[in-house]
Amino acid sequence: MPISLAELNDAAPAAFVAALGGVFEHAPWVAEAAARTRPFATVQALEAAMRAAVEAVPDAQRLALLAGHPELAGRAARAGAIAPDSIAEQAAAGLDRLSEAEYARFAALNAAYREKFGLPFILCVKRHGRASLLKQFEARLGSTPEQERRTAEAEVFRIAAIRLNALVEGEGPLKTTGRISTHVLDTCRGRPAEGVALELYEIVPGAEPALVARALTNADGRTDAPLIGGRPVPIGTYELRFALGDHYRRLGLDLPDPPFLDVVPLRFGVAEPEGHYHVPLVATPWSFQTYRGS
Amino acid sequence: MPISLAELNDAAPAAFVAALGGVFEHAPWVAEAAARTRPFATVQALEAAMRAAVEAVPDAQRLALLAGHPELAGRAARAGAIAPDSIAEQAAAGLDRLSEAEYARFAALNAAYREKFGLPFILCVKRHGRASLLKQFEARLGSTPEQERRTAEAEVFRIAAIRLNALVEGEGPLKTTGRISTHVLDTCRGRPAEGVALELYEIVPGAEPALVARALTNADGRTDAPLIGGRPVPIGTYELRFALGDHYRRLGLDLPDPPFLDVVPLRFGVAEPEGHYHVPLVATPWSFQTYRGS
Amino acid sequence: MPISLAELNDAAPAAFVAALGGVFEHAPWVAEAAARTRPFATVQALEAAMRAAVEAVPDAQRLALLAGHPELAGRAARAGAIAPDSIAEQAAAGLDRLSEAEYARFAALNAAYREKFGLPFILCVKRHGRASLLKQFEARLGSTPEQERRTAEAEVFRIAAIRLNALVEGEGPLKTTGRISTHVLDTCRGRPAEGVALELYEIVPGAEPALVARALTNADGRTDAPLIGGRPVPIGTYELRFALGDHYRRLGLDLPDPPFLDVVPLRFGVAEPEGHYHVPLVATPWSFQTYRGS
Amino acid sequence: MPISLAELNDAAPAAFVAALGGVFEHAPWVAEAAARTRPFATVQALEAAMRAAVEAVPDAQRLALLAGHPELAGRAARAGAIAPDSIAEQAAAGLDRLSEAEYARFAALNAAYREKFGLPFILCVKRHGRASLLKQFEARLGSTPEQERRTAEAEVFRIAAIRLNALVEGEGPLKTTGRISTHVLDTCRGRPAEGVALELYEIVPGAEPALVARALTNADGRTDAPLIGGRPVPIGTYELRFALGDHYRRLGLDLPDPPFLDVVPLRFGVAEPEGHYHVPLVATPWSFQTYRGS
Repeated sequence: MPISLAELNDAAPAAFVAALGGVFEHAPWVAEAAARTRPFATVQALEAAMRAAVEAVPDAQRLALLAGHPELAGRAARAGAIAPDSIAEQAAAGLDRLSEAEYARFAALNAAYREKFGLPFILCVKRHGRASLLKQFEARLGSTPEQERRTAEAEVFRIAAIRLNALVEGEGPLKTTGRISTHVLDTCRGRPAEGVALELYEIVPGAEPALVARALTNADGRTDAPLIGGRPVPIGTYELRFALGDHYRRLGLDLPDPPFLDVVPLRFGVAEPEGHYHVPLVATPWSFQTYRGS
Repeated sequence: MPISLAELNDAAPAAFVAALGGVFEHAPWVAEAAARTRPFATVQALEAAMRAAVEAVPDAQRLALLAGHPELAGRAARAGAIAPDSIAEQAAAGLDRLSEAEYARFAALNAAYREKFGLPFILCVKRHGRASLLKQFEARLGSTPEQERRTAEAEVFRIAAIRLNALVEGEGPLKTTGRISTHVLDTCRGRPAEGVALELYEIVPGAEPALVARALTNADGRTDAPLIGGRPVPIGTYELRFALGDHYRRLGLDLPDPPFLDVVPLRFGVAEPEGHYHVPLVATPWSFQTYRGS
Repeated sequence: MPISLAELNDAAPAAFVAALGGVFEHAPWVAEAAARTRPFATVQALEAAMRAAVEAVPDAQRLALLAGHPELAGRAARAGAIAPDSIAEQAAAGLDRLSEAEYARFAALNAAYREKFGLPFILCVKRHGRASLLKQFEARLGSTPEQERRTAEAEVFRIAAIRLNALVEGEGPLKTTGRISTHVLDTCRGRPAEGVALELYEIVPGAEPALVARALTNADGRTDAPLIGGRPVPIGTYELRFALGDHYRRLGLDLPDPPFLDVVPLRFGVAEPEGHYHVPLVATPWSFQTYRGS
Repeated sequence: MPISLAELNDAAPAAFVAALGGVFEHAPWVAEAAARTRPFATVQALEAAMRAAVEAVPDAQRLALLAGHPELAGRAARAGAIAPDSIAEQAAAGLDRLSEAEYARFAALNAAYREKFGLPFILCVKRHGRASLLKQFEARLGSTPEQERRTAEAEVFRIAAIRLNALVEGEGPLKTTGRISTHVLDTCRGRPAEGVALELYEIVPGAEPALVARALTNADGRTDAPLIGGRPVPIGTYELRFALGDHYRRLGLDLPDPPFLDVVPLRFGVAEPEGHYHVPLVATPWSFQTYRGS
């Protein structure tokens, strides 16, 4: 249940901190500092105040903020000893369902990272699919400590922005969500294709495609809700699969067996978690196309 | 090494039968009869004469022609006790590389078929992919004996036509081959996409995609040879995969990571083994399409 | 300024008739009859009541309703002696700007029609472009009197529905409007094409294309308002012209002179005046396409 | 009737000059010089020899070569006093059918050019459409004498190459021809559209479109011959018009009236006279697209 910005502006300092103390992991002092600069006209202003609070403290305290973060798929996460928001975030990325081999891989990366940088590896996991997450981990192991310090702090702010947006309702919300949507057009009949079953999969190299969403097109050829929406779209490769052959069979067309087009896969990559990926299918029984739409 | 129609027209009867005696399985009498109606102006006329020879004999002999065919993936095939052409044909369909479970499946189907119809199951295997072959087998088990008799004979003629075409060179060849071809156009630059790596897979439900061909596009955006050509295209589902992302990276475009389009799959079905399936890829870094072309 | 359905439901009978007396040409009695069946929950119910009022009167009075309509581009219209709504409707169709030859053509058609059917030719002109209007006129001259009586009355109801919709605001509005819209996507860059100048023309055989609308695409590649909207789309042929070459020159692309694509025309027909014609342009400097979208 | 390179290699010098003396306007000395460097292995080598002959003579003689060219649409052309090849070339560009106003425009340009550069304006007219020709004329009036001298000579060599290619047959022909071709695909039925009537027009601003070619698609959806071929494609803007609505009506489809697509225009520009412009139409009754193909 989000709290309104107006309520936050009027709340007692303790209530403010009770509401926003968890936005930065184990660091309620950020909310305490921000509370003193109220009122905020927008959620963006509130976020800027929290960011300024972080940037105002001595370096040692900033480092401690980073050090307080749990490891990805680490022992603390396994034992349930991390902040509730972190548990949910790591679970959303599937990090609570790793195989023993994967745990071992993460454990090795965590150890290597901590050895090199003296900090836990921090990443806004909601913005990454499984493959991207590992790729980031490996790439960042190659950074310099200075770069890595900046990157880790930027990730902390990203995590905070998503949490803040989920907690607070008001003018000027932060842009922390992206979208995958589709639209099926039947250009043989010049109208939207209704009732087409479709599935969205995340494609991870070396693993089975993971089902993300399943939907049926409505009378306008769209899905009633975005396939991914209201959250960042994890960076990764996706495949939409449309049961186009079934659609044309239902319309009574005389198709060959097998039809030229039956289940149509559209494979595409997502690099901007806050972007809108509109991936339409413009089709006939003998042709199809897609493009990044808007 | 094909023999010319002219040579066949001039050959001694024994030489004619030596050349064409294997066109119908274990039935050199078909060639013997055809030899008596020479000369033939076209390969088609030769085929018609062989067909007429079959249709002229008493019913019992026609049945014997069917009965002489080896079972698909049967004991005889495993033991190498079938005609060399049949060995090659069954091998082309992968029937010599079945798992034990698959052999068992075929054995059961063969037994059920023989029990119901008193004949071996005959199919021109070169015209079917693995999934289609099993589907045919199961569908035909449901036929009436009369239908099945006609179907089996039609398949015998199809097998004969392909063998004949491979053996004889001359005017009026039989249409026993199909084709899968492609063409990659880069509509961002308005020219063919050269050097695009692509692969053709056969898609069999419940199994790994099977690689059929691999090629690189030439300066005209085409492959130097068809991906399948000079033979029937086995009925089935195929997937072309184009390394489009690599193409644009090579051109120096600044693509996101991962790119919107990287490996682009085009999945399509083939229902006419003697048809031409031209499946082009018209693409930019942000859009692609295909259609059955010509 | 439309009046609300609630106000009409509460109005004195005279006020009701003052508001809606002109919905049927020279026939305030239709509104009088409908007033007695108030209240109406929806605009559709009001329209049904007016229609029922017409259908309840003796045949002679129904005929008189038809006879009261002005001729298209007729003497009365030229002299300004027709109802104000009819003046506006005929003007919208360009019937007040005919050449002498065209007037003569209409005069001849009007005379032939009146001679054959004893009635003025009635057509809901807002639903027809210039060419369609003449085509209708000629086609209907070939009808039987019975067909034509039904057709003329149906047109009277169409005219009434459009007038009613413009006069009354409330639940359940009548569907009397269509739309032409567009969307320009640059698939070279994977995003909407902003700032593309475009024009919509009506194409009339034997005449210069007539400019209907002119617009610039916004950041989403769309126009801020539909090119035709809030009214029926006149039946006819249209051409959208997009200054695509200018768009790519503005982006600094190195195009040949002349470019492969400069002004891109998309020509399409409209047969359903109450339909939505979404006609997108999906383009690169070397390719374009359109389809009836939604 | 072209002469073979072998014959030219063996011909007496006088016969050689009789055959090729007109390749350079009023300058048989070029052929005389080239004859002395025989034999030529390719047409390209012959052309290089003629070019070398021009480049070897003193500057005054090179200038005289330019001075010997007729004006475009000039008095000499009108009076028939120019070389036969020039007559045909100017006629092909429509310069023999100018209106009085157009003659006047050319006369003014010719005069201005001669005044500034002391030479006739030389252009390989076969490579230019009407609009491009005037544009060139105006642009070149702004050149410096040095630039213009080089440009004029380059045009003389282009004219010579086209003449040479038409006269001589042999290995290594010069690339002096381009092509416009098309292909109509019906993606509703997944096959080529046969019997589609199409026309190619040249679009000249301020004038009626000029018909260039008319054809019917064959069973493969192509035209039997290129729409322009065997000659340079004049630089300019073209429009292909396809009678797509007629095609679908012939197939018995139930289309609205007017259909969404009836006559489909594809407008495109040609900037490379020696290029291949393949402009396909991939269509359904409700969609179409084109791209520069190959």
